[in-house]
Amino acid sequence: MDYAARERDADFLMNDVFNIQEKWSQIEAFQELSPDLVKAVIAEGGRLASEVMAPLNEVGDQHGCQLKDGEVTTPPGFKEAFAELTQGGWLGLSGNPAFGGQGMPKSLAGLIEEMFWAANSSLFLYGSLTVGACLSIDAHGSAEQKQTYLEKLYSGAWTGAMALTESHAGTDLGMMRTKAEPQADGSYRITGTKIFITSGEHDLAENIVHLTLARIVDGPKGTKGISLFIVPKYVPQSDGSLGPRNGWASGSLEHKMGINGSATSVINYDGAQGFLLGEEHQGLAAMFTMMNYERLSVGLQGLGAGDLAYQHSAKYAEDRIQGRSATGAQSPDTEADSLLVHPDVRRMLLTQRAYVDGCRAFAFFAGMQLDEAKHNGDERAERFGQLLTPVVKAFLTDKGLEAAVLAQQVLGGHGYVKEWGVEQIVRDARIAQIYEGANGIQALDLAGRKVVRDGGKTLKELLDALGGFDVDPSFQQPVEEAFARLLRVTDSMIARSNEDANLPGAVSTDYLDMMGTTLCAWAWGVMAGKAEDDEFGTVKKQTARFFFARLLPRTIGLEQSILADSDVLMDMPQALFNA
Amino acid sequence: MDYAARERDADFLMNDVFNIQEKWSQIEAFQELSPDLVKAVIAEGGRLASEVMAPLNEVGDQHGCQLKDGEVTTPPGFKEAFAELTQGGWLGLSGNPAFGGQGMPKSLAGLIEEMFWAANSSLFLYGSLTVGACLSIDAHGSAEQKQTYLEKLYSGAWTGAMALTESHAGTDLGMMRTKAEPQADGSYRITGTKIFITSGEHDLAENIVHLTLARIVDGPKGTKGISLFIVPKYVPQSDGSLGPRNGWASGSLEHKMGINGSATSVINYDGAQGFLLGEEHQGLAAMFTMMNYERLSVGLQGLGAGDLAYQHSAKYAEDRIQGRSATGAQSPDTEADSLLVHPDVRRMLLTQRAYVDGCRAFAFFAGMQLDEAKHNGDERAERFGQLLTPVVKAFLTDKGLEAAVLAQQVLGGHGYVKEWGVEQIVRDARIAQIYEGANGIQALDLAGRKVVRDGGKTLKELLDALGGFDVDPSFQQPVEEAFARLLRVTDSMIARSNEDANLPGAVSTDYLDMMGTTLCAWAWGVMAGKAEDDEFGTVKKQTARFFFARLLPRTIGLEQSILADSDVLMDMPQALFNA
Repeated sequence: MDYAARERDADFLMNDVFNIQEKWSQIEAFQELSPDLVKAVIAEGGRLASEVMAPLNEVGDQHGCQLKDGEVTTPPGFKEAFAELTQGGWLGLSGNPAFGGQGMPKSLAGLIEEMFWAANSSLFLYGSLTVGACLSIDAHGSAEQKQTYLEKLYSGAWTGAMALTESHAGTDLGMMRTKAEPQADGSYRITGTKIFITSGEHDLAENIVHLTLARIVDGPKGTKGISLFIVPKYVPQSDGSLGPRNGWASGSLEHKMGINGSATSVINYDGAQGFLLGEEHQGLAAMFTMMNYERLSVGLQGLGAGDLAYQHSAKYAEDRIQGRSATGAQSPDTEADSLLVHPDVRRMLLTQRAYVDGCRAFAFFAGMQLDEAKHNGDERAERFGQLLTPVVKAFLTDKGLEAAVLAQQVLGGHGYVKEWGVEQIVRDARIAQIYEGANGIQALDLAGRKVVRDGGKTLKELLDALGGFDVDPSFQQPVEEAFARLLRVTDSMIARSNEDANLPGAVSTDYLDMMGTTLCAWAWGVMAGKAEDDEFGTVKKQTARFFFARLLPRTIGLEQSILADSDVLMDMPQALFNA
Repeated sequence: MDYAARERDADFLMNDVFNIQEKWSQIEAFQELSPDLVKAVIAEGGRLASEVMAPLNEVGDQHGCQLKDGEVTTPPGFKEAFAELTQGGWLGLSGNPAFGGQGMPKSLAGLIEEMFWAANSSLFLYGSLTVGACLSIDAHGSAEQKQTYLEKLYSGAWTGAMALTESHAGTDLGMMRTKAEPQADGSYRITGTKIFITSGEHDLAENIVHLTLARIVDGPKGTKGISLFIVPKYVPQSDGSLGPRNGWASGSLEHKMGINGSATSVINYDGAQGFLLGEEHQGLAAMFTMMNYERLSVGLQGLGAGDLAYQHSAKYAEDRIQGRSATGAQSPDTEADSLLVHPDVRRMLLTQRAYVDGCRAFAFFAGMQLDEAKHNGDERAERFGQLLTPVVKAFLTDKGLEAAVLAQQVLGGHGYVKEWGVEQIVRDARIAQIYEGANGIQALDLAGRKVVRDGGKTLKELLDALGGFDVDPSFQQPVEEAFARLLRVTDSMIARSNEDANLPGAVSTDYLDMMGTTLCAWAWGVMAGKAEDDEFGTVKKQTARFFFARLLPRTIGLEQSILADSDVLMDMPQALFNA
């Protein structure tokens, strides 16, 4: 499926909007990151995305993955493309240089990840899980574990997977039954069944490293008794070779709505050898290192899907001639005008673009916070990153689906048939709202943990910090009003939550939607102010106008909805939902 | 896929809310429609839907349709189920009694159609197109054509299809190239290629009757030169037998996102014999008789999908235990509480239910208008029906998709895998927003033709009429505010359209959304007022509370958005959409 990486947008955000070279000059680890090097990274990432990964996107959907005799075969071409992805060092882009990573900023890596997701989300899933596994091992592993695993994973010789979910326990990890029995040699025997394991088994790498949550026998009940284990497909031996096949296997592949090129396995652990990662019973904390990365990254998956959808529908709308402009023929010499003369088609396209560009900007800002927290130990940036993570994950994936559905609508009947490709974007994008913590969980994390429990302190600091950016004068007032609205709603939510434990969950999804839209408003205000009068700048200014006139008003309705108490949800007797 | 027909809701709407027996007593044709007969029709329709059609819904998706040697095979079981559907006389439910139809009210037929759509949209498509073809032949056919076709179609021995779209011309019918050459015997030879022809070729009936739009050679250009033809698969002979195969064939089947059990063909007409239906060059008018029915019916497809989605997600939420209530364990003896303790899960379920029940009520009201227009020649009811048709089509299908996506989210990962069935509802529901006039076309029809061109007269009459219903006192004020908001926006839209031809199209989608939501508000106000204190009534009252508190506020944001002028869309230079 054709995809053009947004190199110019990346440049605009880094240099015009966020003056990133100055920020990076204050971070020791980024001293050698010259503008030329950054440009080259973006260009090469874009090339890989559009020329190597994108052409396999439909192939992956059509062929899917096959399980035969316990072996999983990925779609034709995936092996070669994954080899190119890994040999370029892309999985270690922001990895630890001590073990072969390239140590680049998370914010920069995010721009690249968006491209990879857009080009081929199924293929990049094999990489994304690997990057996440590295983060967890780097943060919680012993020196020996880092030595054994990181370089192999950064290079893509081995890949990673995350094994949390069991069929009876999705979000509720405390109900987990997979058990870990301590062995005399310090390792554990892992036994149990996990479902929905993305990249759990496949043929793209010589080894697959599961990070598996399990309960050490006789450990505490609930989430406090859960530990994290490294459970490789082949256990690395002290001489560097790989041992025999470990005791786990893919029992079946899930049949999914989309991302068919990504192998999603049921994994049966039958006394597999596992190695404790981090502390006993501290598995959730260790897993969250991986999960937080994955959440940001999955947000970028939504963003990439939205941009891919935009590109396909904008192209179709320009090429397709149908009907006449309401103001008279615009192309009198052809049989009809382009779809682009119709205001409602423009609405569908500009809605996609306004969310895609706005979200890219605030996701980049979130990446900057992670960089400052990690490299400069900036405590406030750390909190900003934590606050923004659920918004990036949920808002970008929600808007990614919205964009994909709009793109499909632009294509009309062609949007519903497989040969045009856009229906695949809808099916592929849909998963991003569900996995890595469903968006309802993100919303509760935001409203409950990150805002109410914090008394709104971090949010207010964030809005103060954002207020320090120059905003285009034409949008100064609506941005200020949007901030004021968000603060008003926040205060109300916090006050009412004191007496109503259900309140944060009752309003959380609308609250997250409002925060995401408000962050988009800020981003558009700032971007419009930096836009010049050339074509690129005109697109930004006009899209900003559209956003403020047509999309920001959604927050006015959201405010009213959030002001409702939880009783409008909770008073319905439980038994009557199925009456 | 399990589905329970909403017999109690049908009864509530007919008897408690709309006092339908009194209405029907004033219509000559409905004099014999006793409450017992109506109850029996609803019960038998529900049985057919849940016991015969629903069990084949997943089968249809998995097997799809096959084209081999020009013959299309439908999924296993479809033939037997369709036979049961047709032998019960269901396709002629509101058909002309002079030709074997049962002459029942459209409003009643709509309740039944919702059930059939919910149970198995792919299977019912074969029936729905047949009902539409009957309406067109009944309205525009010669006495001989009615005699020849109607009874066969009502009985389902033959089925109907509608052949409009060509690959280069979707919505813009004026660009049509299929030609009709007059023959000495008064018939025409039809030549051309049509795409997206639902039920165009299949194995469920002994004959298939295409209503095909084509241009009589040397006729006027544009839509004024288009005529409608009956082009049967086998031409009926004067002795009642069927002639040899006519000159058209299914060239291929479309590969679609969903409704896989419905055969969607490319049809090649190669000098096929066709018979003019209605007047020369008046094809669009004749086609719209069929289309207007299909639009209402497709709205009910969205409604059915929404209810099916609700039923599956409500069941899952009740059964699935995960996490604990924010107020402490609700089921301390089990490992976790039901998903129903979580306010955000309730929000997802109540959103579905509030739209489904609200939409069912105003769609039923729309059906009542058609009945009064047809049988009592009520001119105002005719205009109400015309005004409401695009709203029913677009709003119900938009909310159907929204409900299906929410249901999928309730199921989490299980919502994304095929074995749980809900992802199929999403894929199947998606088409309803696209076909029979994409929802953007419905919105333009509403805003431009039905409101602006009419100066808002019919809308105001409608709101006056709706205002005559008793509304529950607790919701009197918000319903009045919603009406006032809609009127305000309408006046503004009309005033600005005088000077800006692009204005209706610029705001049309938001305007339709606002009108649909406002009609839901009215329906909930009325239903809450009629609800008693039993379980059924409690569901209605609580859902109404939820609707007013959490969904109606969307119209506040929509009002602001609609107040924007078209320049925020039109000022973007056309060339920059792909820059």
